[in-house]
Amino acid sequence: MIFDLEKLLSGNRRALAKAITLVESKLDTHRVEAQHILEQVLPHSGNSIRIGITGVPGVGKSTFIEAFGLFLIAQGKRVAVLAVDPSSPIAGGSILGDKTRMEELSRREEAFIRPSPSEGALGGVAQKTRETMLLCEAAGYDVILVETVGVGQSEYQVAGMVDFFMVLMLPGGGDELQGIKKGIMELADALVINKADGDSERLATLTRQQYTSAMNLLRHTSFWTPQVMTCSALKNINIDAVWGMLVDYQIKARQKGAFDAKRAQQNRDWMHQLVNEMLHLKLSQNTEVQQLMPTLEAGVESHRLTAYAAAQQILEKL
Amino acid sequence: MIFDLEKLLSGNRRALAKAITLVESKLDTHRVEAQHILEQVLPHSGNSIRIGITGVPGVGKSTFIEAFGLFLIAQGKRVAVLAVDPSSPIAGGSILGDKTRMEELSRREEAFIRPSPSEGALGGVAQKTRETMLLCEAAGYDVILVETVGVGQSEYQVAGMVDFFMVLMLPGGGDELQGIKKGIMELADALVINKADGDSERLATLTRQQYTSAMNLLRHTSFWTPQVMTCSALKNINIDAVWGMLVDYQIKARQKGAFDAKRAQQNRDWMHQLVNEMLHLKLSQNTEVQQLMPTLEAGVESHRLTAYAAAQQILEKL
Repeated sequence: MIFDLEKLLSGNRRALAKAITLVESKLDTHRVEAQHILEQVLPHSGNSIRIGITGVPGVGKSTFIEAFGLFLIAQGKRVAVLAVDPSSPIAGGSILGDKTRMEELSRREEAFIRPSPSEGALGGVAQKTRETMLLCEAAGYDVILVETVGVGQSEYQVAGMVDFFMVLMLPGGGDELQGIKKGIMELADALVINKADGDSERLATLTRQQYTSAMNLLRHTSFWTPQVMTCSALKNINIDAVWGMLVDYQIKARQKGAFDAKRAQQNRDWMHQLVNEMLHLKLSQNTEVQQLMPTLEAGVESHRLTAYAAAQQILEKL
Repeated sequence: MIFDLEKLLSGNRRALAKAITLVESKLDTHRVEAQHILEQVLPHSGNSIRIGITGVPGVGKSTFIEAFGLFLIAQGKRVAVLAVDPSSPIAGGSILGDKTRMEELSRREEAFIRPSPSEGALGGVAQKTRETMLLCEAAGYDVILVETVGVGQSEYQVAGMVDFFMVLMLPGGGDELQGIKKGIMELADALVINKADGDSERLATLTRQQYTSAMNLLRHTSFWTPQVMTCSALKNINIDAVWGMLVDYQIKARQKGAFDAKRAQQNRDWMHQLVNEMLHLKLSQNTEVQQLMPTLEAGVESHRLTAYAAAQQILEKL
């Protein structure tokens, strides 16, 4: 065993980075090693709050994470910033978790910033981010921020792997809303209206009132009503209040047993999702199925074959 | 072979009803017979326009379908009304396709109304509705209306099996919108604001203008911009215009080859979906997997086992 587990558990950043590289690798040997490491760190994982953060481009996600991360470090926390971006790697600012966009935070010893892994094997980017979270927890990070931009299914994936899902918004009404995919509001545990400073402060307050009414029509749990807040990451206004809300959430969720129940459910869902993907991998690696597939697809496309009959033929080859 | 295929193809309603009963049956022998019938009718299917209709309770779906169906019959069409309602059978008005709610239409020889099948085996209610559509087409129905109420995934399922997806709405703004699930607007090929009569007519026109702006921000294809119309099913106003729009859609979609391309894609998707469900059936029927599952679920829930390791153990049993 080349990998030094004790170093990772002691919080060594190079050991952490190395373990993540193994998790992200496409090589089978690395994959096996990564799973071995994950099994060993599992008893040491879980001691964090996992916070998902999304928002349209321009909403100030990096600025928010920089301000929020520095605030948390000042509270004595260690902060990991991960990213889920199915579209990466692409050029420029949309590579999430880019350290150059979080200059001060990235220089801090208490912060660990990891850009989005490139498109991957089984489970995709989300799978790697889940496994990376476990490694970060084992390395002693208290707060894990999982950033995503609204591409494909990424918000749903992130909402399904965190304890708390936060949507950053801009001051102002309907037009900005259009940039947010439908369904995302229903996943949100909080809306945080950023850039509530200067001339925009009044508009932000108005926006907050509007969304508070709108959110009241949406999802509720027994113990938590989605909160709508304003802040300014740039001017460092209300960043403490955002953390206050998260502390409040943790207290309430733990009182109701909901915190652990949600994680248990997420783990179960994750397992079933991996079973699905492994089954699909099996299908795609079956040469008989792959030879048959074009004929069957052409058959159902041109109405010569029912979908049911085609599906049965595929199953018979397994 | 007990079933009389010629009768079905000649448009005999009893033969059609019998074939649908076989499709809906949970008995394996019926299932086999149903698939045999479907394979035989397949070359005779496809000659219809399939229209999905959804809308919140109270929007007047039944009244609209009654008025629209009678209009189509007056145009020389034969009309089938099917329903996808994952929540049925339940008491009262929410059993879709209920003949008593479409009194005049249900008495017409040119109409065939079939209530929603109860929760089913492989592929669920949606699978049965897809197969029933093929049978109705083989029996010579030109227009197939697939009605759904917004429960679970039903709108998505219906949008995935029709040529044109229509959302009925009420005159008035934001509050009604809340009843419509997020994401549905993006599926709509048209919004039809019903009850545009009497005192509500002005409000309906205003609503139309608002939604026209909103829809312009959403999905477009190269040949079709989602239309927003008003009508009154009760007063028989603009029902002809709704059909005019559908004729226009068909002409444009066929010119671009999009009509057939969409159906081909739907058939392909349907096949893959059935493969998924058959794989899951295989898992759920594997006694070794079922015996192992509670232990594995408990393991991942309590963080003693990674999801990946648990999923691998399941796959090994197959």
